[in-house]
Amino acid sequence: MESELSPTGLSVVLVTPRNPLNIGAGARAMSNFGFFDLRLVNPYEVAFREAKSAVKAERVLREAREFPTLAEAVADCSLVVGTTSRGPRTLQHPLRRLEEGGRLIAKKLPSSRVALLFGSEKFGLSNDDLSHCHWLMRIPTREGHGSMNLGQAVAVCLYEIIRNPGAIAKVTPKPPARAEDLERFSILLETLLDLSGYVHARVGESTRMKIRRLVRRMDLTAHDAEVWMGMLRQVQWKLVSLSKE
Amino acid sequence: MESELSPTGLSVVLVTPRNPLNIGAGARAMSNFGFFDLRLVNPYEVAFREAKSAVKAERVLREAREFPTLAEAVADCSLVVGTTSRGPRTLQHPLRRLEEGGRLIAKKLPSSRVALLFGSEKFGLSNDDLSHCHWLMRIPTREGHGSMNLGQAVAVCLYEIIRNPGAIAKVTPKPPARAEDLERFSILLETLLDLSGYVHARVGESTRMKIRRLVRRMDLTAHDAEVWMGMLRQVQWKLVSLSKE
Repeated sequence: MESELSPTGLSVVLVTPRNPLNIGAGARAMSNFGFFDLRLVNPYEVAFREAKSAVKAERVLREAREFPTLAEAVADCSLVVGTTSRGPRTLQHPLRRLEEGGRLIAKKLPSSRVALLFGSEKFGLSNDDLSHCHWLMRIPTREGHGSMNLGQAVAVCLYEIIRNPGAIAKVTPKPPARAEDLERFSILLETLLDLSGYVHARVGESTRMKIRRLVRRMDLTAHDAEVWMGMLRQVQWKLVSLSKE
Repeated sequence: MESELSPTGLSVVLVTPRNPLNIGAGARAMSNFGFFDLRLVNPYEVAFREAKSAVKAERVLREAREFPTLAEAVADCSLVVGTTSRGPRTLQHPLRRLEEGGRLIAKKLPSSRVALLFGSEKFGLSNDDLSHCHWLMRIPTREGHGSMNLGQAVAVCLYEIIRNPGAIAKVTPKPPARAEDLERFSILLETLLDLSGYVHARVGESTRMKIRRLVRRMDLTAHDAEVWMGMLRQVQWKLVSLSKE
């Protein structure tokens, strides 16, 4: 229902999937519900090769793309949503119930490219993965039963998104900043904080994730991201040139 | 969530399933969503035996029962619903969209035992199977893509049944930044832009308003406003102290 090259639409991103059956099942659910852009981050090589033979998902798998990092996989997306079947493990991210999240995603799709992230079968999404997300969505499974099967989780989430076609809003909001812009912003801010001594020497991984989340929470439009980048670049230039004097 | 022996509750009935992975996946989805009564009609012997080892579905599979005929499998149920991902193949049965059907089932569950039927992977439910049903429910998949994977179909149907539109979690938003914090933030940012030469000499009124709006659009929480102020103050301090050297 969507074109591959469109700046709007849904991309399903499987992060380090290990099991070819799960990749195939995810692709089949996508095809079932009319989504065709599958992205794999650092998949287990053999798994991806074997998955390509999955029935009833040929197009999705043929066009699936591999990326070495999550940042690259979501670079052109302006909303990045992580999925989890656990409870509120982290308080750093807004956690939405699937129903509410699905509605928000459906609303965004006509104007933006949205990435929906699924973690590996064994470990789910890592904290580093999560720091790329704007918010998280939880499938309301029973307490006491851990995670869902990956293919089934994909099916349930996509069903919730297409469930109510009427809910898709006709509002055209300002184009939001894309993930790669936010990543550039985060890196620039990090550099600035380093230059000013706010963080010391090499920025640790946890600080990096904090900055990333802080920037995502700003919910920037593409235009505002530009403005911020311009301002921070100037401040950076000034700090560097003063240090040289 | 339900007792095995209860005259009320949901029974998932798989009719002549062939693939152990699908039986296991169906059982796992049941466990995920809190349903425990699995019934198999005339399953392929080997498939059932192999399915018993499926992860995270031990209880469901241990207690699963086999029946030689569909009639026997649904004997104690007062509502029998067939599932299909095809369009209206038969006019003999009311065909409901999953959403509507799921709601009707959820309404019945507290007072009745409801059977939810899934056909074999290859052929779906036969006309004979359908004749046992009160009505049918269709998962709204894309036209042109045939059937869903059995395990995924079970997951999506059960999700729809447990989904409670009233239950949307009330996310308690974090306290937002107050106007005076935002104003302090704007002034600090303005100072910084002045120090770095991004804006020249005295900031004009229109630039000031632009900065103010930019900061308001960040939609900051009180906590994030604090963090930003801390970062920008440090950058300001560094700029000032470098200028004095």
